[in-house]
Amino acid sequence: MVGFWHRLGNKGKALYSATLSPPCSSPLTLPHIWVPTQTPQRPLSSGFHRATGKTQSAAEIMSGKPIAKDINLRVAAEISRMKAAIGRLPGLAVVLVGYREDSHAYVHINLKACNEVGIKTSIVQLPQDCTQDRLIDVVSSFNSNPSVHGIIVQLPLPQHLEEETIINFVSPEKDVDGFHPLNIGNLALRGREPLFIPCAPKACIELLLRYRVEIIGKNAVVIGRSKIAGLSTSLLLQRHHATVSTLHSFTNNPEQITRRADIVVSDVGIPNIVGCDWLMPGAVVVDMGTNSDPNSPRGFRTTDDVCYEEAIKVVSAITPVPGGVGPAVISMLLSNTLDSAKRAYGFT
Amino acid sequence: MVGFWHRLGNKGKALYSATLSPPCSSPLTLPHIWVPTQTPQRPLSSGFHRATGKTQSAAEIMSGKPIAKDINLRVAAEISRMKAAIGRLPGLAVVLVGYREDSHAYVHINLKACNEVGIKTSIVQLPQDCTQDRLIDVVSSFNSNPSVHGIIVQLPLPQHLEEETIINFVSPEKDVDGFHPLNIGNLALRGREPLFIPCAPKACIELLLRYRVEIIGKNAVVIGRSKIAGLSTSLLLQRHHATVSTLHSFTNNPEQITRRADIVVSDVGIPNIVGCDWLMPGAVVVDMGTNSDPNSPRGFRTTDDVCYEEAIKVVSAITPVPGGVGPAVISMLLSNTLDSAKRAYGFT
Repeated sequence: MVGFWHRLGNKGKALYSATLSPPCSSPLTLPHIWVPTQTPQRPLSSGFHRATGKTQSAAEIMSGKPIAKDINLRVAAEISRMKAAIGRLPGLAVVLVGYREDSHAYVHINLKACNEVGIKTSIVQLPQDCTQDRLIDVVSSFNSNPSVHGIIVQLPLPQHLEEETIINFVSPEKDVDGFHPLNIGNLALRGREPLFIPCAPKACIELLLRYRVEIIGKNAVVIGRSKIAGLSTSLLLQRHHATVSTLHSFTNNPEQITRRADIVVSDVGIPNIVGCDWLMPGAVVVDMGTNSDPNSPRGFRTTDDVCYEEAIKVVSAITPVPGGVGPAVISMLLSNTLDSAKRAYGFT
Repeated sequence: MVGFWHRLGNKGKALYSATLSPPCSSPLTLPHIWVPTQTPQRPLSSGFHRATGKTQSAAEIMSGKPIAKDINLRVAAEISRMKAAIGRLPGLAVVLVGYREDSHAYVHINLKACNEVGIKTSIVQLPQDCTQDRLIDVVSSFNSNPSVHGIIVQLPLPQHLEEETIINFVSPEKDVDGFHPLNIGNLALRGREPLFIPCAPKACIELLLRYRVEIIGKNAVVIGRSKIAGLSTSLLLQRHHATVSTLHSFTNNPEQITRRADIVVSDVGIPNIVGCDWLMPGAVVVDMGTNSDPNSPRGFRTTDDVCYEEAIKVVSAITPVPGGVGPAVISMLLSNTLDSAKRAYGFT
């Protein structure tokens, strides 16, 4: 049927001209070097799998660690080049309100990664009962500080603070989390380029691209619709011309819909919700499930939304948890901060 | 399966808490009075239809005309009330560049509708070779004019003008078309309220609500992803907790995916692309297809994306073309302009 649409398109009909735009450039602005295999682009021959019932003999494990390592090295090299050329470093500011262990642990990991690649960091820790005005003052000072190129207000905030107001207050030019509605809007609108794409979906697409997963025209199911992962991954997959279905808690029969997907992205946070009976043989699975667990040593833990041991028997590729998307998410924060600094200094 | 998710939700698991928010309030801020039937909410018992193969004996024709008439009367009444209370009227400014017959015809219809309900209108017509700076000057003057509450820059613009720059320049507070990325971003983000929702999706949802079509949890397919209709309808249906799949020119087997949908919204612009073999018996169909035709008397014509005569034999409800979404789209422009004026004057 796609041939029919494209034939119509070739006659200049509206569908084609209205929807055909170049696939979104790779979310990482640095050129790719490392790829895990030299095999041709992975064919997602779902029909074949469905027809024969054959399963992959061994699913490819899409580790994020080598990708993260590669990106971090390249970000560090770019920062060195910038430092040598103009004597400047990128700067990231983090605002942390309250005492959530998981937030502290996550911020600590990010700051450590920044320091390793040469991004200057500053952190402001505010008490749990901090006022909205005080928080806005802090963000405001970072907005106007020319040596700060990225601002993160660590979420979730204590309930008395208005997350929407605070996120709106972060300068869209320094919104390295990509959560400002202006950046989300430009992500949703084809033909536009947001200044920042949220780190989790950027990492998801980067993994798919580096593991040579074909996205264009594929049926993708995204389970969950948080702005941090699910919603923004749906929008980004759509920019890459996947046919995206977004599932959520009101979805009826999610397992039926997921079973038809070539690419499954899960952002639920319920361990093992996606069983192998949810997955089409040969599908590609990106597991973005994370969950807070104050009893774990780090204050939070990554959980498998997908029953990993079951899934590897039927899918063609899957991310491990931990060690899948997670490391690449942090790399995308570094990359976003570097991009912001380069933009601010006009450094190319 | 939905029960399973909700059970998990009731235990406070992340999926539920992260995704459960109140369904978006009706896009029309005025209270509803007119509804076409007094029957209970339409059950989209797709399983029943699929299982029995039964077709509806008669599809309900979801005319937009009585809805538009009702909304326009109510907008006019609100404007009279505002005039009597504070001596002010809403104002809409339209900027029209070049000589496209279809744009002129469409603007003429909108301005006529405005005049009928008491919205003050002003129109600036600029020549085809108008410079970007001149256009920005005009928009700027409307941005700063306190008696203008809505600004429309009629699209498409001549190719030498940058649509993105111009749309970005329209004040989000006067963006009654709802195309500014800030408004699109706030439409995409759950829990946020855009200042304006684009008129076409707002009209689509209004029709569904008034014809008592259940949206929550239903499988919706939107064919097309323009910001004017397809993309923004996908986002709005998702706010109403439908499970949305967005199809486009790269989609493989669109007819298979569409055949599984309880609600089909078509925004393609190719006459008769959606045949009855694309439709599940009992589905609800909203046809938003429009197409430019310089040979038609009005400069454009509305085309049926959906094979209407075929479709009415299998679907449970369908919009006619013309006379379906179209009249309600214009009403939504009036409603958005009124809302903007009320906001500007603090009039409730």
